[in-house]
Order: sequence, then C-alpha cells, then structure tokens
Amino acid sequence: MLFEKLKDYGGSEIYPYHMPGHKRQGMGGLPPQLAELDITEIDGFDNLHQSEGILRELQQFAADAYGAEEAYYLVGGSTSGILSAVSAAIPRGGRLLISRNCHKSIYHAAYLRQLQLSYLYPEQVPEVDICEAVSPEQVREALEREQDINGVLIVSPTYEGRIAEVEEIAQIVHAHGIPLIVDEAHGAHLGFHSAFARGSSRAGADLVVTSVHKTLQAMTQTALLQVNGPLVDRRLVRRFLRIYQSSSPSYVLMASIDNAIRLAWEEGGRLFGQMTENWHGMLERLSACRALTVWPPVSLPQEEYQKHQDIGKLVISVKNTGITGQELYRELLERYGLQLEMACDGYVLAMFTVGDVFQGYQRMAEALLEIDSRLKRSEGQETQWPRESAPQRRVCLPLCESWDLPMQWIALEDAVGRYAGTFVNIYPPGTPILVPGECLEEADTRRIERYLADGLNVQGISVRNGVPGLEVLTSA
Amino acid sequence: MLFEKLKDYGGSEIYPYHMPGHKRQGMGGLPPQLAELDITEIDGFDNLHQSEGILRELQQFAADAYGAEEAYYLVGGSTSGILSAVSAAIPRGGRLLISRNCHKSIYHAAYLRQLQLSYLYPEQVPEVDICEAVSPEQVREALEREQDINGVLIVSPTYEGRIAEVEEIAQIVHAHGIPLIVDEAHGAHLGFHSAFARGSSRAGADLVVTSVHKTLQAMTQTALLQVNGPLVDRRLVRRFLRIYQSSSPSYVLMASIDNAIRLAWEEGGRLFGQMTENWHGMLERLSACRALTVWPPVSLPQEEYQKHQDIGKLVISVKNTGITGQELYRELLERYGLQLEMACDGYVLAMFTVGDVFQGYQRMAEALLEIDSRLKRSEGQETQWPRESAPQRRVCLPLCESWDLPMQWIALEDAVGRYAGTFVNIYPPGTPILVPGECLEEADTRRIERYLADGLNVQGISVRNGVPGLEVLTSA
Repeated sequence: MLFEKLKDYGGSEIYPYHMPGHKRQGMGGLPPQLAELDITEIDGFDNLHQSEGILRELQQFAADAYGAEEAYYLVGGSTSGILSAVSAAIPRGGRLLISRNCHKSIYHAAYLRQLQLSYLYPEQVPEVDICEAVSPEQVREALEREQDINGVLIVSPTYEGRIAEVEEIAQIVHAHGIPLIVDEAHGAHLGFHSAFARGSSRAGADLVVTSVHKTLQAMTQTALLQVNGPLVDRRLVRRFLRIYQSSSPSYVLMASIDNAIRLAWEEGGRLFGQMTENWHGMLERLSACRALTVWPPVSLPQEEYQKHQDIGKLVISVKNTGITGQELYRELLERYGLQLEMACDGYVLAMFTVGDVFQGYQRMAEALLEIDSRLKRSEGQETQWPRESAPQRRVCLPLCESWDLPMQWIALEDAVGRYAGTFVNIYPPGTPILVPGECLEEADTRRIERYLADGLNVQGISVRNGVPGLEVLTSA
Repeated sequence: MLFEKLKDYGGSEIYPYHMPGHKRQGMGGLPPQLAELDITEIDGFDNLHQSEGILRELQQFAADAYGAEEAYYLVGGSTSGILSAVSAAIPRGGRLLISRNCHKSIYHAAYLRQLQLSYLYPEQVPEVDICEAVSPEQVREALEREQDINGVLIVSPTYEGRIAEVEEIAQIVHAHGIPLIVDEAHGAHLGFHSAFARGSSRAGADLVVTSVHKTLQAMTQTALLQVNGPLVDRRLVRRFLRIYQSSSPSYVLMASIDNAIRLAWEEGGRLFGQMTENWHGMLERLSACRALTVWPPVSLPQEEYQKHQDIGKLVISVKNTGITGQELYRELLERYGLQLEMACDGYVLAMFTVGDVFQGYQRMAEALLEIDSRLKRSEGQETQWPRESAPQRRVCLPLCESWDLPMQWIALEDAVGRYAGTFVNIYPPGTPILVPGECLEEADTRRIERYLADGLNVQGISVRNGVPGLEVLTSA
C-alpha cells in the first residue's frame, strides 16, 4: 500500500526541491526503481517519528496482524528495537535478567544505560548440542532468587529455532510487576499459519522485537517493535525510537515492511501451507541420513511445532562424523553451490523461509544425502566443541564499568585468569562467548583456539605478529 | 563496484539458505531489483562491523575521496554517525561545546552519555534572518571562558547553506588539545568541484559526519563518518558504530553509498560544473524579484562560495511581503507542483543538488517571478518571525537529568516560567527551539503559537481538547 503510493507519487509531475539528492532521477548505474521510490518526509507521506497519517495507519495494521496493541516500524533493524525496548523498559542503572545466549545488541543496551545484568543459562538439546529456549522454571527461580530485577528479556525463537513458553513466562514475570521483552527477531512468521506457534504479543509479552527481513519477504535491516500492556511507558518507547533511529528513515525500507506483513497476512495460509509441506517433505528424505544428525527429526510431533520448535531452521550436526561444521559448510558451498546461514564447530544451520522455492528444499536434501553417504558415523570421535556451552560465570565486574576501564592486548595463550576487555563471539549470530568484565577460564581459551583453527569468524580476537589475542583489562 | 558485485552474485547459481527471507526471489509487488541486490553478510561480501575485504576497500576509497584518514559507511543515516562520534570523542559525563542550532541527534547523544552541554549562539544573516555558521572568534572565546570542555561540535554547512571557517576553528580547538566534530550532513558534495568549499576533513576536523543521501545521488538514510588525527580513539569509534548501527546492515544502502561517492569522484567535474552553471543562471533570473528576497544574491562573489556559502540551498524570504513562508510553500506546491524542503514563518528553503535537471531550475525561477509580480513589498509589515532567534538561555537543569524527571502536560498559555520536559522543534530539520530543562519565556510561547497558527509541523507540542500544550517538569 505504501509502495503503490510511492509509485504514484514517483509518476506525478511534482518536482522535488528536497532530499534525497538523486531527486528521483536515478543514481548512475543503479536500477532506476530504487530512486523512483526513495523519498523523504514530504507532504502526504507522514513522519515516522511522529506518525499521524499513512504511517500511523500502516503501523496499526502491523500491530493488528501480530495481535499487538501498538507497533513501530524499525529501519535500523532489530538492533534499534532492542536498544529502544531495553532503554524504555528499564531505568538507567536498573537490573535486567536476560538469557545468556541473547544478541550483542542487548549487552550494548545494558552498557549504554548502565544496567546490571543477571543471566539465565539455557539448557542444551542433547541430540545436536544447540541451546534450548529458557524455561518458565528458570525464570521463576531467578526472580525468586535475585532482588530488584526491573525486567526480563528472553530470546524466542532462538537462532537455532527453539521456542520458549512465552505465555507461562509472561505470567511469572508479570506476577513480579515487571515487563517481559522478547527478542523475536527470528519469529516474524509466527502466528500466520495454524501449524506455527503464536507470536509473543499474543502470548502476553510487553515488548516484542521482530525482524521482518529475517523470515518474511522484506529487505535487510527492516524490523518491527510491538508494544503491549501498561508496564512500559509508551512515551519512553517513542522517545528512544527517535533517539536510536535515523531522522531520515528510508521509505523504501518502510514500504518493504508494509509489503511483507501484508503478504503474510493476506496470503499466509497458502504460502506458509506450501512451506510447511516442503519442509516436512525434506525432513522425510533427510531421515535416511546415517552419519549426520538432522534437527528437528521428521518424527517430531506437530504439537511441538506449535509450542517448542520453529519451522525453517534446519540444524545439521556433525557429531561423531569425523568432520567439523565448517568443513560441511564449505563443502555445501563449494561443491553444491549452497550458501548456509552459519557454521560452528559442531553443526551448520540452514534457514528456510516463505521465500524458498521447492528446488531449494530438494537441493539441500540431495546434497546432504550424498555427503552423508560418504561419511561414517563412529561414536566418541568428539570432533565437535559445543558452540553454546556458556558456563555459569561469576561476573567479575559489571559490563558498564569494565568496558570503560584501561585495557591492553594480550596473547590468547596468556589470557587465562585475565578479565575480558572486549566481547568475543562468533558471527553470525553474535551471541557473546565472553562479555567485558568476565574472567577468562582455561575452557574459554581452548574453545576460542579451536574456533580459530576451524576458520570461524571469531569477533573480538585480533592477530598480532601471527599470534591471536584480545583486549583484557589492564589492572583487574 | 559493490553494486556490480551484488548483481553478479544475484545472477549466480548459489542458493541462499540464509537471511533475508525473500531469498532474492522477489517481494510480491515490489520491484524485483530490490530483492536481487539485497543480501546479508555471506562469504565474499565482508562484514561492515569488522571489515576486512570489499567493504574495507570501499570505505578506504570513500576516505580518500574526502581526504580523510578513515571512513565508515553509515546505514542509520547521519544520526548514527553523530551518536557514534559524540560517544567516542567525549567521555561519559563529559562536557561538549555545541552550536545551539545543531540537530536533535546531538542532544540525544548528550542525553545517552550524560554530557553537560555548553552553547555557541550563531549570528544571523540580516537580509533573510537565517542562522550564520559559528565563527572562529565565538569558539575561541567560549573555550577561554568555559573550563573542562572535552570537545566541540559545529554544523557546517548549516541547513540553510552557511559554511564555517573550519580550518581556523580546528586550529583553535586543537590548541586546547580536544577534538572538533563537524556535522557536515549537508556537505557531501564539498570538495568535489573547484567552485565549492573544501570538506571539513581537508580543513582539519577530527570527526566529520556526512549525509551522502542529502546532496549526492544516494538513497535516504545513507551517510559517512570520516575520522582523522590522534585525538579520538579509533577503537571507540568502531565500538559505538557497532552499538548504534544495525547488525544486519543493508547492502542495497551500502551499494548506494559507494555508487554516489564514485559518481561524484569520477564525474564530479562535469556534473557539478553543470550544476553551478544552472544555479547561477537561476539566481540571475531571480535577481528580478522585487518583493521576495532571494538568498544567496546573484551578486555574491565567487570567493564566498569557496569559503562561506554553499551552493544549492536557495532561501526565499517573505520579509515585508505580507505573506508567510508557509503560504509561499503551499502556493508553490499547490499551484506550481513544486515540493520544497522546508517552510518556516519568515522564509522557505529549496534544495538543489547534482541530481537536478535544468527544468528544475527553470520551473523554480518562473514560479517565483510570477508570485513575486503579484506581491507588494512594504517595509515594516513584519509578518515574519525569525525562525532561529534562539535566545542565550540560562540552562536551568542539565538535559540528561531533567529529561528523566517526572513531568506533566500543561497548556502552552500557562507554560511561561515552567521548565520544558520535552524537545520542541520545527521539522524539518529538527533543531530544537526548546531543550528539556530550559525555562519557557514569554517569547517562546508566543513564537510557538505563531508557528502553530502558520500550520508548521511543531514537534513536541500536543493538543488536548483543542488546546496546544507540552510536557513540563512537575516539580522544577
């Protein structure tokens, strides 16, 4: 709808004496469609930061589609939504309870707002060593144990596709009179088909951050912040959105958000029905794998998809096969032309969305079956190193203090017992192995060395004279 | 160059099992070109937040084009660059000297980082009542008067096209051992033609934030942060860019940054030469105006364009004509189909860039001459209210404290003597009339009432039961 309005405007005789500088005339070699649609806040097109016209209407449509009270378009990705949600929900210097495997942006929000962090440590799914979502029991226990928590933030679905029991968790959190924020970056499709779990707004969360671009057909960097209930001051939500987002938001990105949600709303039944069918067909074929472990298994009951397991996140574990995740990733790319989302030591992750064609499911099944036929399973090979084995750390210094202390570079091999001065994480997705202020243990350095040897993208580690190392606090 | 690489990749046989969810297959009714180019951080395409490959190379090209040591692509607009620059250059709780007419994002950065603000109050250009750029003398005097300033931020060119003497200001600021940040959002074209002023990196500024989309042919929300010299810790610059920007930056936006800078670099001589010719031709015709005052005047010597006056910002003052800026703005739009950038009480602003065609200059000249012929000039009519007459306020409470205090809504007519709890500004461009913590004076409420009567977009003012009002601090 916004797209059509932009297109009509582009075809009008009105001459632009305003930004952007391309004046809708084109941008050299770039496709002319990009310039035609790209306007700024002119008459009739409202203002994202003070919406009263078309953008207000479109955002209300988005809210309704997700069963939320209000929704805000995000042109700075889920990152801008997380920064805004945490800043609005938790007072400066407050205390936030988070699941340890959450995205770096949550730690960044904690740093900016000088929050104290407490952690929930997710269990693992034993078959493939991926992180579980946090459980209601973990949240209940933590809130009883820890005092003065101002809010809770969980991730659901997780990057690997595990879904939390958001309704139960919301009830527990609300019983303490504090808000629940859900990082639902990977769940923009939830609720659009009867075979999927509900989205977190419908399950009672107060603030929900959803990446429209990750699982729906929208452009990269687009997302949505959903707002519900009386526990978070709406004025603060709008304040922080204005602070963290561009004052020149892209109408192309906004049109893409509108278009993707409208597609899911209007044609979701058909599109996601087809996706579900393709997905189960692929899992059926992959059940013939003998060496690789595929998650979710074809035998997973339908109820699990409505409660605990997302559709579209295919985890292939190399446990006990003699190869690493990175090796499988490279073979899929180089021999089969299949670009996966992520590799770590123990598994790879492939994402399927509503945008996939049947051939995509087929090519993946055929490649994996062929690779599997060449592998031998042998228990106890232990080539893999669990990616998310985050130990229950004693946090030595709060993030917001330690990240501002003097630091120095030190070789990884000398870092045991020192306090991290930087985040260390594998990208994607950017959930930290180490947070500034955490004391390095033997297991940390061994694990990081292993990742480096595997050729993974380990952020926070730099190489000097051929030696890998990191920033540590100078005097702690 | 990035565009070509994305296009080649889009045409390859590699199948995407990763974000974005549209899988490059299309996004319903949106132009297929948008989806084809829209990828994420996959092999061969580097990572904006840890660039080591193509993005590093492209950013170095951008730095070279602007004569900067380093440059960083911004996909969150100049807003993300300002937040990052201020956060990296000034320690938490530090003191920043800024020109009072700077963009809201600078105030936002001050709030986030709990900075104390001191102000430079720009003079006015008397012919048209627009703000001047701040002068070296103002900066020198303020730095001698105020203690413990950690850095200085100025705007150049201003929104209305006035250019500061950045080289002299940089020398003064550096003599105090502190960094100079220039909000050069409106100056992406500077330095690309011999008739233009130099950009601020070449003049010695430490951090320069440039909106590529405002005056070059790039998509909305694209910008560049330039970094120079030893006074700002580069690690902090990168840290804050990672914090404030999306962890899923759009490759379409990044390709557009690269494309626009490359165009300016490779074809700037021809393109900007043509623009300069069209510009002066239009000013020549507009010199026939008898009632409207056009700025810059056709008689402005060429040296002024190289030192103090930007090309492309046409200010048309309605001083002593009996009409308001908003009336002129509406007439240009409704009768002539000319959409201007901004209207305020006393003038309107039209932006010309490298993207304009000859007809754009012609249509503007003809419309203004026709309107002018119907107007009568009569001194002392005083219909206008200077837009940027920001008085030298006594700041009652620091922004970072007052914005977190309890507040209440109050009718504008009752607000004199109360302390603002919100920013009040006209949009565009969003430079504040009132900052939280500032005491409202009689002149403020009169001025805001006048803007409202003119139908301007006054942000921070809300209407309850038909009465305009704003949030003020409850107990101060």
